[in-house]
Amino acid sequence: MACGNLLDLNDCSVEEWIGLINLANDIYVNPRDYIHRCDGRVLATLFYEPSTRTQMSFQAAMLRLGGQIIGFDNPVNSSVSKGETLMDTMQIVSNYADIMVIRHPQEGAARAASLYSTSPVINAGDGGHLHPTQTLTDLVTLSMTKGTLSGLHIGVCGDLKYGRTVHSLLKAMSRFPGNRFTFISTPELALPAYCKNLLNAAGCPFEEVPSIEDCIGDLELLYMTRIQAERFSSKEAYEKQRGVFILTEEKMKAARSNLAVLHPLPRVDEIEAAVDRDPRALYFTQAKLGMYGRMALILRMLEDDIVIHSERDYRLTENSCPNPHCITHLERKLPHNVCKGQDGEDICLYCETKY
Amino acid sequence: MACGNLLDLNDCSVEEWIGLINLANDIYVNPRDYIHRCDGRVLATLFYEPSTRTQMSFQAAMLRLGGQIIGFDNPVNSSVSKGETLMDTMQIVSNYADIMVIRHPQEGAARAASLYSTSPVINAGDGGHLHPTQTLTDLVTLSMTKGTLSGLHIGVCGDLKYGRTVHSLLKAMSRFPGNRFTFISTPELALPAYCKNLLNAAGCPFEEVPSIEDCIGDLELLYMTRIQAERFSSKEAYEKQRGVFILTEEKMKAARSNLAVLHPLPRVDEIEAAVDRDPRALYFTQAKLGMYGRMALILRMLEDDIVIHSERDYRLTENSCPNPHCITHLERKLPHNVCKGQDGEDICLYCETKY
Amino acid sequence: MACGNLLDLNDCSVEEWIGLINLANDIYVNPRDYIHRCDGRVLATLFYEPSTRTQMSFQAAMLRLGGQIIGFDNPVNSSVSKGETLMDTMQIVSNYADIMVIRHPQEGAARAASLYSTSPVINAGDGGHLHPTQTLTDLVTLSMTKGTLSGLHIGVCGDLKYGRTVHSLLKAMSRFPGNRFTFISTPELALPAYCKNLLNAAGCPFEEVPSIEDCIGDLELLYMTRIQAERFSSKEAYEKQRGVFILTEEKMKAARSNLAVLHPLPRVDEIEAAVDRDPRALYFTQAKLGMYGRMALILRMLEDDIVIHSERDYRLTENSCPNPHCITHLERKLPHNVCKGQDGEDICLYCETKY
Repeated sequence: MACGNLLDLNDCSVEEWIGLINLANDIYVNPRDYIHRCDGRVLATLFYEPSTRTQMSFQAAMLRLGGQIIGFDNPVNSSVSKGETLMDTMQIVSNYADIMVIRHPQEGAARAASLYSTSPVINAGDGGHLHPTQTLTDLVTLSMTKGTLSGLHIGVCGDLKYGRTVHSLLKAMSRFPGNRFTFISTPELALPAYCKNLLNAAGCPFEEVPSIEDCIGDLELLYMTRIQAERFSSKEAYEKQRGVFILTEEKMKAARSNLAVLHPLPRVDEIEAAVDRDPRALYFTQAKLGMYGRMALILRMLEDDIVIHSERDYRLTENSCPNPHCITHLERKLPHNVCKGQDGEDICLYCETKY
Repeated sequence: MACGNLLDLNDCSVEEWIGLINLANDIYVNPRDYIHRCDGRVLATLFYEPSTRTQMSFQAAMLRLGGQIIGFDNPVNSSVSKGETLMDTMQIVSNYADIMVIRHPQEGAARAASLYSTSPVINAGDGGHLHPTQTLTDLVTLSMTKGTLSGLHIGVCGDLKYGRTVHSLLKAMSRFPGNRFTFISTPELALPAYCKNLLNAAGCPFEEVPSIEDCIGDLELLYMTRIQAERFSSKEAYEKQRGVFILTEEKMKAARSNLAVLHPLPRVDEIEAAVDRDPRALYFTQAKLGMYGRMALILRMLEDDIVIHSERDYRLTENSCPNPHCITHLERKLPHNVCKGQDGEDICLYCETKY
Repeated sequence: MACGNLLDLNDCSVEEWIGLINLANDIYVNPRDYIHRCDGRVLATLFYEPSTRTQMSFQAAMLRLGGQIIGFDNPVNSSVSKGETLMDTMQIVSNYADIMVIRHPQEGAARAASLYSTSPVINAGDGGHLHPTQTLTDLVTLSMTKGTLSGLHIGVCGDLKYGRTVHSLLKAMSRFPGNRFTFISTPELALPAYCKNLLNAAGCPFEEVPSIEDCIGDLELLYMTRIQAERFSSKEAYEKQRGVFILTEEKMKAARSNLAVLHPLPRVDEIEAAVDRDPRALYFTQAKLGMYGRMALILRMLEDDIVIHSERDYRLTENSCPNPHCITHLERKLPHNVCKGQDGEDICLYCETKY
């Protein structure tokens, strides 16, 4: 696998991101030039938890490149229900397909899968850990709709504590110059310290405010996410506070004309349906452009001219990963491998939790 | 959407029906001429309730035109289970696909879907409301096997009260000259008044008889449908009467040599298996020809040379639709829109129930 | 259907097997020559019980020949749940597809299906009865990795009583000269008498030993299968004995350098994961080559230059099949047909059980 896997967007360089974004843009503009580029190739979507939109986005991407698709969307229909391990499934199915897309509820599942696959693996979400093609979607959308990834004032609203798409977006946008952030959340769902450290290290200014109204007039991007009711301390706290984090037509009146509203979707209540008609509401455009980002990624990975340095040095350990959501606790035969984290500490190879 | 949607077959003119039937016939005779007509195009089948035959018929139709397919057949595997609305799903998935086929248990769901889709929508059945490609299938079959859609004596047997395919067939056949009808059912499951009014208005003679034997000798078409046990007043009434509405080899002896027996399928007990061998039993041929009808429809809708006038003037109302099976009662964020019915009364835009 | 169906591998001659194996090998070596051979053709996979690997193997096979796929993998999503019979489903779906692959939990289901299908049918497993493409996979793998199907010392380990893949493999390998067998199992799960009779009739020497260590040093092929815990007389017997039938790295040390280890997969515990790294472990290669075997089969069946004599003379009987797992007990409208067995006795046409 010269081209490696796409497990974590940070395994690619910023130059590779730009290459993917430019390719996505070219496919968007000239789709007919690409309709036979993956003729005779097969993509497998192995969805160990359902995610219709993500799966259909990958499927449509492959089909529009001339390739074909196999896969499953329901673990109870798979050999998993006969006790087959993820490792064996990967070793078998990677013989049928040229490229694999895996979605799994456990953290680290995509890296585990990649160790046993003979075809390149794309991580389409591994529990609360990573979802790199969502971040790629965000980058493609910003680049194609705003024309730049730099010098933006970015508001992020909702569950900033648990939202993996938020953490990935910050990490990605902090690598471009001149971006600054405003975070809108409750104290309980505020951005974790490690994200703040990351922004500080990157020299990105940020502030925290309690409501959308406090910042919307100055933002170029407002990234909305869902707050689940169960994240609040009580039902009363939820009912009292939820309105604060809902984007309404009324609040949009104070926003700049060049604001872009994004949302990773699915949306529940956090953006009023009336906002959909606002030309600054770009979340459905974002879903569309995500397909082009995935087309660019599949094409690059299959055509082998992208080298993603996803391999890591690791060693076996006797201890179990302390993260109860790690794939190693579900797939008991996976070796307990650790690698070195950023500060030289031992972290789980799969879910990157500190041992 | 220059070409509009196919929500109700009556949105097309009789000339457009004939065009579709002729195209279906040409595809049937010269299938190799059509195998690349939809190259690079994607059809999505969004089946909110399973209907394997209908879904496979659409899928095979698109694949035989060179197109590709995505979709789902099980709502619990879809983002719906995360609370995504039908409206959002349509806005997202219509970015991935060039044409959408929707099946839904609630009445009016297809029209609701079409309001939010950026690609044309085909109604593949919305609860007890409409199922226009079934009627198209019936028309294609009659035209290709009998050579005409006019001057026929048509018997319809089974549940005439609730059977939406029966109502659609009557509506369609009443638009061709010289057809007359004989209805075979129980008093409880007799044809509703609005259908009789429609036939009277169209000048189509009809009569009602209590058994198949009473009319089979004079029919050119016998359209069989299922009577569900639960439609009878009691289990005893069901057991006593069911045999009357079963087509047997014995009863076929009295039929004309040019009789065509159709059935929308699936069949349960209402046609004896022995009848399958009779050359006049055309229900499996009908299933086959339905695929060609759907090929013609997809092709016309994608190639944009059919204009279906499916848009209607409507306005928002404060009241809820009185039909408990209307999509508005499941999808609570849908605006309560009403339009004008045939007599100028307010009807629900989606399910067409009188307010 | 000039080409017939593939219901039982023994309906083909050894020459036809060799033809399929050679074709599979040619596709493996020159895949680009075959990518348009099934353009415009459709394969349906009707999986009445889930078997992800088998289904994906067939799907990838068809797609890599340029064909397309439809189908279902879950009976509750199919029209079956509305009471449609297998016979009706076959009569309908065979209009949509050029070739049908059926998997069903009941014995004899594939033959029943073939009687009602207008397209050729491939049996992808009918309960405990037959699974001919698994045996084809085994033959392709042996031929391509060992270069011969003759003169081999073959060990077979595991559940030899109930394992249908084992019985088929023996039947197939006994038709090539010079093969001899060693069986490794518990007395309770020993090879049934009819298999021993078959080997004796074919002049194949065989012996039975209690452990892998007793024979591994002399084998050219070790065919591993799973022993299900519930097959043992008690939980204690299982715990005491299971280790005996597990292939370990340690046991592999005594094996010949030209040993091939095969397994029909999925594997549970019967082969230690550490053995996977041994170059003699060919079970994942076997899964890969199975796809090429299926490509060869689909191509031959669609191109009509293979004539499989799958038709049998049969007559209707009044009695029910004595096998409770026979398809006739689930599909009550299937006629009770019997044909003549090898010794002239009446056997069920579908599941081949003696009446």
